[in-house]
Amino acid sequence: MPLVPEAVERLIAEFGRLPGVGPKTAQRLTFFCLRAPSEVSQRLSGALAELHEAVRPCSRCYFIAQGELCAICSDARRDPAQICVVEEPLDVLAIERSGEFHGLYHVLGGALSPMDGIGPDELRIAELERRLRGGEVREVVIATDPDVEGEATAFYLGERLAAPGVTVSRLAHGLPAGTDLEYADELTVARAFTGRRAL
Amino acid sequence: MPLVPEAVERLIAEFGRLPGVGPKTAQRLTFFCLRAPSEVSQRLSGALAELHEAVRPCSRCYFIAQGELCAICSDARRDPAQICVVEEPLDVLAIERSGEFHGLYHVLGGALSPMDGIGPDELRIAELERRLRGGEVREVVIATDPDVEGEATAFYLGERLAAPGVTVSRLAHGLPAGTDLEYADELTVARAFTGRRAL
Repeated sequence: MPLVPEAVERLIAEFGRLPGVGPKTAQRLTFFCLRAPSEVSQRLSGALAELHEAVRPCSRCYFIAQGELCAICSDARRDPAQICVVEEPLDVLAIERSGEFHGLYHVLGGALSPMDGIGPDELRIAELERRLRGGEVREVVIATDPDVEGEATAFYLGERLAAPGVTVSRLAHGLPAGTDLEYADELTVARAFTGRRAL
Repeated sequence: MPLVPEAVERLIAEFGRLPGVGPKTAQRLTFFCLRAPSEVSQRLSGALAELHEAVRPCSRCYFIAQGELCAICSDARRDPAQICVVEEPLDVLAIERSGEFHGLYHVLGGALSPMDGIGPDELRIAELERRLRGGEVREVVIATDPDVEGEATAFYLGERLAAPGVTVSRLAHGLPAGTDLEYADELTVARAFTGRRAL
């Protein structure tokens, strides 16, 4: 006979499926829900149940949207001449937090990874090309992750998207802000040297 | 206009109410749910919705139960002459994992903390005394947390529960297993000295 009721075991198991939630954390979250007023669990339950009903990918950029277009694509103040290409929807939020970019996005849905069977056809590259054919876009900023897959994807896109009248750029690599040089890894320091600029 | 649909904002907010889940983690969990098959969210949602319906405190020891009594109280192989007193239901699981205790439990529901308005009447101490009056219990092992409130509670219970024929004991303090002496804090080392035993 298990030590705790089945409903408790089940919630521990479901919490444990979330990324970064190990068995002990799952247990702690479950016992927090048990102790908290039942509204806490009910509201989280409701928000989870409605998530997929209310949300779908933007039909233009594949960021998350409530209707046909996402909040960014339907904002007339955004510059349609710039498209920033990212791997995942969360990357859009990271770039928006920086306040540095005022164009539109394109969410690829991942990065090239032949080992995992992800080639160009598994990403939304054809959809990106279709947007470029409109002729309005002047710059494509590749903002894939600074890891092996992201680099490969950026390189691939740089070749494939090359066309007269469109600049394809890549986010700069270098030292992250607010850190110590002594703790930076070799590759980051090497890239910071390669990309150094005159003051 | 918010950047993400309201349903997404809401799930981020609800995840953020869980202990140890900051805004970034809440966002990451939400986007994981968005990306994963909808069954993942639906199953977590269902488990949360059913939690409070199916579970209630054991009417004897206040550990979590499905029916009247919890799995431990209804297990005839447990020794009813020993009661281990803990603060929270999760503490029961920690002690069960050790495999060292084969008696019953009593969950106080917290520890004495006059600053937070928690006095003896806010804990399930009268309920514990009622169990002791049955005459079957020979030993009460106090397993409150080794912090200020837990120590105060243990001391208070030691005085209040003192009765002929009942031993009141306290879990040993000392060095935790598998760690380095050099990293132990002063109080832990001091207590390990006080509680030293002949070999």
